[in-house]
Amino acid sequence: CCIYFNNIQDFAKKTIEMGKNDPRKIIFSLKMGFALFFVSLLIFWKEPFPEIAQFSIWAILTVLIMFEFTIGGTLIKGFNRGLGTLFAGMLAFIFAQLALWAGEWEKVVWVVSIFIVAFCGTYLKLYPTMAPYEYGYRVFILTYCILIMAGNRTGGYNVAILTRLALIALGACICLIINIGICPIWAGEDLHRLVIKNFMDLATSLEGCIDGYLNCVECDESTNHSEYNGYKSVIESTSREQTLLGFAIWEPPHGRYKMHKNPWRDFVKLSSELRHCAFMVMALHGCIQSKIQAPPEKRKVFQNELKRVGIDATNVLRELGTKLGKMEALNSHENILKEVHETAQNLQKKIDNKSYLLVNSKNWEIGKPNIIDNFDDSSNENGSSENLPLNFQSLSETAIDIRDLHTPQYPKDQLVTKSMLFNKQNHWPSCLSLLDGEKIDTIDEIETYLSASALSLATFASLLIEFVARLQNVVDCFEELSQRAEFKEPISAKS
Amino acid sequence: CCIYFNNIQDFAKKTIEMGKNDPRKIIFSLKMGFALFFVSLLIFWKEPFPEIAQFSIWAILTVLIMFEFTIGGTLIKGFNRGLGTLFAGMLAFIFAQLALWAGEWEKVVWVVSIFIVAFCGTYLKLYPTMAPYEYGYRVFILTYCILIMAGNRTGGYNVAILTRLALIALGACICLIINIGICPIWAGEDLHRLVIKNFMDLATSLEGCIDGYLNCVECDESTNHSEYNGYKSVIESTSREQTLLGFAIWEPPHGRYKMHKNPWRDFVKLSSELRHCAFMVMALHGCIQSKIQAPPEKRKVFQNELKRVGIDATNVLRELGTKLGKMEALNSHENILKEVHETAQNLQKKIDNKSYLLVNSKNWEIGKPNIIDNFDDSSNENGSSENLPLNFQSLSETAIDIRDLHTPQYPKDQLVTKSMLFNKQNHWPSCLSLLDGEKIDTIDEIETYLSASALSLATFASLLIEFVARLQNVVDCFEELSQRAEFKEPISAKS
Repeated sequence: CCIYFNNIQDFAKKTIEMGKNDPRKIIFSLKMGFALFFVSLLIFWKEPFPEIAQFSIWAILTVLIMFEFTIGGTLIKGFNRGLGTLFAGMLAFIFAQLALWAGEWEKVVWVVSIFIVAFCGTYLKLYPTMAPYEYGYRVFILTYCILIMAGNRTGGYNVAILTRLALIALGACICLIINIGICPIWAGEDLHRLVIKNFMDLATSLEGCIDGYLNCVECDESTNHSEYNGYKSVIESTSREQTLLGFAIWEPPHGRYKMHKNPWRDFVKLSSELRHCAFMVMALHGCIQSKIQAPPEKRKVFQNELKRVGIDATNVLRELGTKLGKMEALNSHENILKEVHETAQNLQKKIDNKSYLLVNSKNWEIGKPNIIDNFDDSSNENGSSENLPLNFQSLSETAIDIRDLHTPQYPKDQLVTKSMLFNKQNHWPSCLSLLDGEKIDTIDEIETYLSASALSLATFASLLIEFVARLQNVVDCFEELSQRAEFKEPISAKS
Repeated sequence: CCIYFNNIQDFAKKTIEMGKNDPRKIIFSLKMGFALFFVSLLIFWKEPFPEIAQFSIWAILTVLIMFEFTIGGTLIKGFNRGLGTLFAGMLAFIFAQLALWAGEWEKVVWVVSIFIVAFCGTYLKLYPTMAPYEYGYRVFILTYCILIMAGNRTGGYNVAILTRLALIALGACICLIINIGICPIWAGEDLHRLVIKNFMDLATSLEGCIDGYLNCVECDESTNHSEYNGYKSVIESTSREQTLLGFAIWEPPHGRYKMHKNPWRDFVKLSSELRHCAFMVMALHGCIQSKIQAPPEKRKVFQNELKRVGIDATNVLRELGTKLGKMEALNSHENILKEVHETAQNLQKKIDNKSYLLVNSKNWEIGKPNIIDNFDDSSNENGSSENLPLNFQSLSETAIDIRDLHTPQYPKDQLVTKSMLFNKQNHWPSCLSLLDGEKIDTIDEIETYLSASALSLATFASLLIEFVARLQNVVDCFEELSQRAEFKEPISAKS
């Protein structure tokens, strides 16, 4: 009993918190309460039409059906309600005539007509392109049944039908007036905020992924680090965006969007371009989760360049997000991508210069490079990685997936042959060697694995560069949006 | 007018086709028609309670609300309807007492109670975990209003409330009997089919991606090739799976699933593991769409290995899909992944042996490899690529993004400096050189770009290998599912 009480207390606390965090929810609930309150005042109605009090439930039903959180949602539901009711009313009038002609078979006509209407309505609403009007079909069938039943009971078809239609219209009016008149909640604004949030989330996520990769974080799929998973919310926001867009395009121009020509479709397009970038971040995160991992020593070589690209790309995303929030155009005099392109090119150059770290030249069919001869000379040349005593010969030994070897100081000779195979029994590539035989070409396989592990660093860098390349599309799309929606010029450009 | 008529004719044709393709839709519509038909027979009701004919609309309303395509959906709606109605009924009884005590303020109590109920109901349904019961809250408010109005009008609260509750229960019963009794449509079956379809789609998509990459298909983002985009439907099926799962777990064991212990959650888990593979296919497709492209000559070197991995991985996916369809366990004697692991390892070895194609060793800080000396020897060694006159020295020149140079026979000296920069004005990396100055280090940049383009082939191969590595998880998950749901042993194992 005490547990129940605690649960209830807990729930109450959370409910109140929800209201504090998003007061719109309280406002919406109050609006709903008022709308029903006003409609229910109809029960005090006396003259001239006493029937109105009796059938006021139809106005209440309409309010309950139409009252949605956003204005766009209310308008769509209202449209569905209106269209469904109109068709149902027309059909009811037609069948009313038929029923009158049928004489004593009147009720049979009614029942059969309900069957036909229900069948056709249900079948048509299953048609793929009719999905947004699913609701309208339901209303249509319901209203038809209501009108028929009412007419049948009192006999005065026309009066019954008209009274109900009038009450439904009244309910719709009250609903629209209260929902739009008092603190309206616009779907377009939600969409705008969502797209901005996507930019910020992706920036955080990219930062987290690069830091995580460089710090060789062990990323378990079960643990959910919010810093990584920003990209997930970007990718998963598709359906929410589509829903909000569906509502937003119904909304009249309002507030700060009054001057801009319905930018909603462009917002969604921008967001979908951003999603293409998010897919690359997902691939980067995939490198962290990957079974084949590059050794930390090698990552350190490219550390500075990777970090620079990450920081610059993050800055671009954040700036675009901020500008979108302020509805400000890009500065036409400078290229927002200039810096990130430069740093990406530096990364590419570095990879180019150090690609011997990424491949296993021992097995080259065209002959081994003469690397060892002048290795000492070169290690003095590269400034940033001077402190790393990277001996090229030992690279193939350090290139082991560190996640499987939890001893940082391992004996260099044993590790390759035994511990790896033992720890990774169930996983590729070692499962092969266990299946095929015993020691046939174990060394060969391990070398293959090692070279794959080194190449995974190249993959990471290459995905990051592709991310930067795709940023161009986002910027292009942003410019298109800012032109079409007539975003204001940035202040810095004016001064 | 003629156009309208054609449109209607077209629509009618498509509608009839829809029914032919999925006869369940016709059956469902017929069921809906019959359910409403039976309920509407209530208008013939005379004795002993004449009120029943009058209020039969509530049974109709219930049928309209509850009748969903799948059994699970109907049960959930029914549960919502039931719970909402029950609470509304209880609350209505309580307020009815209060109203009676209030005497002449009776109607005021009603109106105020509607406001309170509407406010609380609307607010609570906005609580995140309440989303599945959103519908119940709506029914709750509606039913409360109905009961209050009815009671208010006739004065006989208890009779009014009870009659309506009985009619709602009747509607619910008819709905359940007809929907479950006649040709039931199970959400679980749909879910099962969807997961199988995901396996097949992903297989087709992987095949298409590898073929497309090897044939250097120019992939415009605007064109939608279904063979590539199977992975999209896999990725986008998340929400549909969740919806179907939400319905399926409400369904009782039935048909061929009777013996299996509610495998629905495991189906969805399997599908989400498959989705991790789909992300890799998406990344592979990203390589096709990428701005930085590997030259076709280099792709051809790895052609056979890439194709083998693709074929084997596709076979694994198809076999898993087929086994899932038959609800058959994996053969415990052989490893389904054996072949694909072998071919993946071959690919890795090939990359290892030929990684000089993927990097630009000219810039190595540790000195250039002595490749040119014995290049002629090696070109005789590799069997598969004998026909390709690959001159290592000219590779950096052929490594240009072919999409931007639409002349296949270009003069070898000019192309690097001019045409590329001109065609890619707006795109990285050439935009940099246009911004920075004129010719400072154009050659340097182009070489950087060229090496990036070669490395993109390594990325493709490395992503494919990661795809194979992730297949292990799918197989593990499949085994878990087949154990828990007690799939039958494969026939080949018995014989």
